[in-house]
Amino acid sequence: MPGNGSARLVTDPDVIASYAHDEAQWAPYGTPAALVRAGSARDVARVVEVCARLGVPVVPRGAGTGLSGGANALDGCVLLSLEAMDGILEIDPVERLAVVQPGVVNDDLRRACAEHGLWYPPDPASSPWSTIGGNVATNAGGVCCVKYGVTRDYVLALEAVVGRGETVRLGRRTAKGVVGYDLCGLLVGSEGTLGVVTEITVRLRGARAPERTVVGYFDTLRDAGAAVASVTAAGVVPSALELVDRHCLQAVDQWRNMGLSADANVLLLGRSDAPGEAGEAEADTMVRCFEEAGATWSARSADETEAEALFAARRLAYPALERLGPVLTEDVCVPRALVPEMLARIERAGAEHDTHIANIAHAGDGNLHPLIIAPAGDDAARVRAQRAFDRIVDDAIALGGTVTGEHGVGLLKRRGLHAELDPAVVALHRAVKNALDPAGIFNPGKVFGPPT
Amino acid sequence: MPGNGSARLVTDPDVIASYAHDEAQWAPYGTPAALVRAGSARDVARVVEVCARLGVPVVPRGAGTGLSGGANALDGCVLLSLEAMDGILEIDPVERLAVVQPGVVNDDLRRACAEHGLWYPPDPASSPWSTIGGNVATNAGGVCCVKYGVTRDYVLALEAVVGRGETVRLGRRTAKGVVGYDLCGLLVGSEGTLGVVTEITVRLRGARAPERTVVGYFDTLRDAGAAVASVTAAGVVPSALELVDRHCLQAVDQWRNMGLSADANVLLLGRSDAPGEAGEAEADTMVRCFEEAGATWSARSADETEAEALFAARRLAYPALERLGPVLTEDVCVPRALVPEMLARIERAGAEHDTHIANIAHAGDGNLHPLIIAPAGDDAARVRAQRAFDRIVDDAIALGGTVTGEHGVGLLKRRGLHAELDPAVVALHRAVKNALDPAGIFNPGKVFGPPT
Repeated sequence: MPGNGSARLVTDPDVIASYAHDEAQWAPYGTPAALVRAGSARDVARVVEVCARLGVPVVPRGAGTGLSGGANALDGCVLLSLEAMDGILEIDPVERLAVVQPGVVNDDLRRACAEHGLWYPPDPASSPWSTIGGNVATNAGGVCCVKYGVTRDYVLALEAVVGRGETVRLGRRTAKGVVGYDLCGLLVGSEGTLGVVTEITVRLRGARAPERTVVGYFDTLRDAGAAVASVTAAGVVPSALELVDRHCLQAVDQWRNMGLSADANVLLLGRSDAPGEAGEAEADTMVRCFEEAGATWSARSADETEAEALFAARRLAYPALERLGPVLTEDVCVPRALVPEMLARIERAGAEHDTHIANIAHAGDGNLHPLIIAPAGDDAARVRAQRAFDRIVDDAIALGGTVTGEHGVGLLKRRGLHAELDPAVVALHRAVKNALDPAGIFNPGKVFGPPT
Repeated sequence: MPGNGSARLVTDPDVIASYAHDEAQWAPYGTPAALVRAGSARDVARVVEVCARLGVPVVPRGAGTGLSGGANALDGCVLLSLEAMDGILEIDPVERLAVVQPGVVNDDLRRACAEHGLWYPPDPASSPWSTIGGNVATNAGGVCCVKYGVTRDYVLALEAVVGRGETVRLGRRTAKGVVGYDLCGLLVGSEGTLGVVTEITVRLRGARAPERTVVGYFDTLRDAGAAVASVTAAGVVPSALELVDRHCLQAVDQWRNMGLSADANVLLLGRSDAPGEAGEAEADTMVRCFEEAGATWSARSADETEAEALFAARRLAYPALERLGPVLTEDVCVPRALVPEMLARIERAGAEHDTHIANIAHAGDGNLHPLIIAPAGDDAARVRAQRAFDRIVDDAIALGGTVTGEHGVGLLKRRGLHAELDPAVVALHRAVKNALDPAGIFNPGKVFGPPT
């Protein structure tokens, strides 16, 4: 049995320090009292029991790839690492579900499912490193979500340690079920503030048909945005519709020498996995939409190896830029038709605050990731970058969008949450938080701020 | 503007009596103090404010087609009818969403969407009468859910009156979003116990390809169940996979003279809406699975008019049986592979308790609707029917299933809920209920019993 070792308590400050924060730049983090590497759900329950008795905050974490500070340490907290609980407990090809421990890496689950002809769709760019537990905590999205939905759409059941250390099972193994409230769905995306997830049952799909890739080069973000809106208006639901700008392509080239950045200011990558003629028709429609929106070049990729390289570059954009200095990652999501307007506003925010902003985007679902760059050690640049960040958040809300599409609120988007949600809605959040976390120990202060 | 009339207070006992219960046989109901027909969200807020102040229970209701007693009156309650709030406020073909008031009838929304080339999938058999508000309250399923999911999968945002009369907006209009807890999803399926929904934003799909229908005749429920398990094991995700037995076909024939019941003891109806060759392959696979499981006859339907008639018969089965006397409807859902075993146990429950049980089922997702029939006025038969009902509930739990797949708990499945859920999980439900309904007025006592 995997993950049945006993908990390991770590007090070495150097080791603890390496666990004290996620990948969110500039999000504050404190000094934890201890780090516990849980080996089983029983370990987790024991830690929660003790912390509830002593009033010590518990901050759960997976691989630490989060981009909002949700896993950052609080002063005096216990950091509860789930990474050693990495067992795939069951894959059932008939019921099309898998049962996993929270520390399983996303790509490892996807590979294991593929061996059974099955597919676990949610595919955040962090999939080589991030864990299913972390994906559940943030309700992670990814490239294929434009057609296949996000993590919550695939979580059938959870085992979690809640309250003062009670272990509960929420959700079900059946295709449908309405017995009681959807507490399983409530825990998904709750960023560790309502309990610690110790086991996850996910729904799977059958392996899908091979994808066709459409590539478009554009001179401007606005043109690329118009192409996205045009694909949506044409009624195509692509299996991916990604945007990468020249800043990102250049950073990838500098790192991996892929020779991508010579040809376009903005690259759009569309895919269709519809089988047969329907897929042909979708790909043709995307080419036409790209051309009509002003693409300088657009074509079906004849070579899927080349297409894979382009998607690899998309996934590498964030770490490639990070190599060049601190990157503050935005995650706004706007109605699809407003993607061109939001991209224009992002350019304006960069210009007005004299800040370098690169862009990647899950453009097909309106989820944009402007990457705000400030040279390390330049405090004035950092202030300007923060202003650009806040401006983009406010613009997204003004366009009827949301401040976070898939990264979570953590610490970085708390101001945005309060700008987006009505105080009466925040009050409902606090009521739920207080009801389910009576000891006030689960990741306190994250998401909607300190309890009142 | 639709639905902007003012509330109409009804105190005529005869009118009120006709609103005092839904379609669940034998579920108790009390005598309401008043009936209010709300014309707007403001009306709803006013009713809730007054009731919260006076401590009067509020029981919201749509069309009253529920099958679990969820909308049944409590003594002294205010029945709050949302049926007059029946406006379709917006259909946005680009964002693929619709905004509706809760009283919109399911089929009316589907028709309005179809005019834009769009599709709202959830299709409970009650779709000609039931309202979207009621569908949201129970997280209604239907025929196409085996492939396309249930109501919660389509609810993007809600406006609701909660607490002591506060109107809040939950959810979003964007494709993705993770700002705060999924309180929108929490309200879906909460059966009026957490607030009153006054507006619903639903996600839509594009119109789909025409369906192919596969028909199979079987001698026994067990053979038909084996065919269902075989389709699942073959990796086919049909767009419908419905089971109807001879009792139901006979009842439909007696009512509508459709000539359906002569040929088979059990009818299986499979559909595929996959485009092109993929759909051909799925239909062929289903025919093969039906034959291998022992179908006495199995074929692709050459005539879609005939196929439509068979599905119409499926939808008419429940009202056709109801004409013949009281019908207690089960709604258990089991893992797909256990459909044959569960069907066998249902037969056994009928035999052991000397009770006539007809069967319809969303067999493809393991959601079975044994229809337990007891002649009106025969008290001994009624006791036996209740025992068969309880036995089926317990069998479903024993097989790892759930007591309700899509009808909700209401009153009839409260015992089942407590049998299925751990007390610690019920405690979480109570904590959420108490946190979000501080006045204790929203449909109290439903779902998980009287508050403690």
